[in-house]
Amino acid sequence: MKTLCFNEKNMELLLVNQTLLPNTLSYFTCKTTQDVIFAMQTMVVRGAPAIGVAAGFGCVLAANESLDAENWLDELNGRLTLLEAARPTAVNLMWAVSRMRALLEAKQPETCLKARDLLLTEALRMEAQDITICKKLGRNGAALLKDGDCVLTHCNAGALATAAYGTALGVIRAAVEEGKKITVIADETRPLLQGARLTSFELSRDHIPVTVACDNACALLMSQGRVDSVIVGADRIAENGDTANKIGTFGVAIIAKHFNIPFYVAAPLSTIDRALPDGSLIPIEERSRDEVASFAGKSILPQDVPAVNFAFDVTPAELISAIITEEGVLTPPYAESIAQAFSARS
Amino acid sequence: MKTLCFNEKNMELLLVNQTLLPNTLSYFTCKTTQDVIFAMQTMVVRGAPAIGVAAGFGCVLAANESLDAENWLDELNGRLTLLEAARPTAVNLMWAVSRMRALLEAKQPETCLKARDLLLTEALRMEAQDITICKKLGRNGAALLKDGDCVLTHCNAGALATAAYGTALGVIRAAVEEGKKITVIADETRPLLQGARLTSFELSRDHIPVTVACDNACALLMSQGRVDSVIVGADRIAENGDTANKIGTFGVAIIAKHFNIPFYVAAPLSTIDRALPDGSLIPIEERSRDEVASFAGKSILPQDVPAVNFAFDVTPAELISAIITEEGVLTPPYAESIAQAFSARS
Repeated sequence: MKTLCFNEKNMELLLVNQTLLPNTLSYFTCKTTQDVIFAMQTMVVRGAPAIGVAAGFGCVLAANESLDAENWLDELNGRLTLLEAARPTAVNLMWAVSRMRALLEAKQPETCLKARDLLLTEALRMEAQDITICKKLGRNGAALLKDGDCVLTHCNAGALATAAYGTALGVIRAAVEEGKKITVIADETRPLLQGARLTSFELSRDHIPVTVACDNACALLMSQGRVDSVIVGADRIAENGDTANKIGTFGVAIIAKHFNIPFYVAAPLSTIDRALPDGSLIPIEERSRDEVASFAGKSILPQDVPAVNFAFDVTPAELISAIITEEGVLTPPYAESIAQAFSARS
Repeated sequence: MKTLCFNEKNMELLLVNQTLLPNTLSYFTCKTTQDVIFAMQTMVVRGAPAIGVAAGFGCVLAANESLDAENWLDELNGRLTLLEAARPTAVNLMWAVSRMRALLEAKQPETCLKARDLLLTEALRMEAQDITICKKLGRNGAALLKDGDCVLTHCNAGALATAAYGTALGVIRAAVEEGKKITVIADETRPLLQGARLTSFELSRDHIPVTVACDNACALLMSQGRVDSVIVGADRIAENGDTANKIGTFGVAIIAKHFNIPFYVAAPLSTIDRALPDGSLIPIEERSRDEVASFAGKSILPQDVPAVNFAFDVTPAELISAIITEEGVLTPPYAESIAQAFSARS
């Protein structure tokens, strides 16, 4: 199973339709930039690294759509601007589009066809790099897990949130590959249930023992001594280590701190937004009432009652025991360790 | 709207079927003790005080079923034993049945018909007392709320969890009756969504402004300064103040503590189990996987993935700012203030 697959012959991007899992495994076909934007906004594809790679291929489709235009570069750039605004919180989206813009700037392709080829090569490289990075990150993080550990995770930071392998779940996969027995508690992660639907789906396919719990069970399970550590992904990390991730992550971090349970964030360096000194500057997406107010087409709220639906929250750096990256396990103070990781890479 | 209504002519207990709210308001008819047990186990009726009052009427039905038996007292007692085992956590169930047993012991009725009459009078008294107690408790708690406050509540400790008026929501109603403007954030309360379905339903009927949030939003909303205090109900309170309540309450209390937000429990003295020195002895009900694994009749988990479903957790006394009762607002140390409240009542 691949989260994303680009078909060069037909110039189309195939995405596992994550809104239909675990009941149906099918692909959603994107032929245009708007299709990719729609897929991101409706959560057909989600997870910061997967959004980044999908955006890379979205740029290829943007060039493909601009082939016949006289002012093709303006058209292409216009499409990239729409694409990078599809969702506000995951920085990997802006990161991927910026990387494509910088490439066009550097190479100055003469025709749109040449631009499309350039972008395609780069998007395929991004996809391959994402997998390499996840595996490296996974190996780095695996050292934090002991044989027999139970890891609690929130939302889905797995293969489905990346091109493959995953970040938080990549750490778990790497520990299992090292021969450690690891069990997982997956928070169901309301409102869109990525933990119940996606994390449990991909772990059970990999025969890694997983149990789903309502988000509400976190404190009880920790108080019972059932949780050895928490590992989550990230949508954007500020320069001081403050981390935006799926709504509810902040609460899990506070509860983990209460019980002295280590709380780890696993994310590639592309999720770190060095332009932001702290997390208060991370834009938090608000989504429709309907995601909270109804389920499977059935209303669970009186019609006149409003609902709040912030998609993310920001966990302050002081609640984070370490940030697991492809350049190593970063520890506080994060401003320093993040700067070191970036200079090690370059 | 009455949560419970006993029809003496037909000897039947009518219960608002809370599993169908907010979409359908209809009554479920109990003609036998088994009907009442079924209604409790399937959450047609829920909420510790409402379970207590329903159990009182359940005892009347138990006597009614035993009218024709030669050994009617044995039959009646057998039915009471089944009834008090219907659910393990809410102590009001055992409290109500014990009260009925003590009455039978004291009065020694000669016939089952006389026993039934005795029990009916007592059940009606329990129902009336429940309402009086909620109103008294509400007035006591209202003093803790300021004009303009926003109160976060978890699950439903409202009119639907009592004979009427409510405990946590009784405090809010009393504050509103005093002329204070109070707004409410209702946690949706997975898995059975009592906050989304019941709390929002009854508050919006009373024109008290309520917004529903996923349980996951708690830390974010508190960090944004949107929550002035938390008020929840209780299913059983140990003698030291440790409080069993709907799963997720413990997490809310930890997060409230992190943000220095007062966390109040509102409950009648009948919820306090003085036989238990601390909360570790409170039995925690585990319910079916299906409540977590499906949502509105649709499966959300792969079939081979297990789920944990504890219905309650226990919040340690040190996280509780005060316990609001009909005998006043109890503050730490609870062993002392609880003992004082009981002696004040007697």
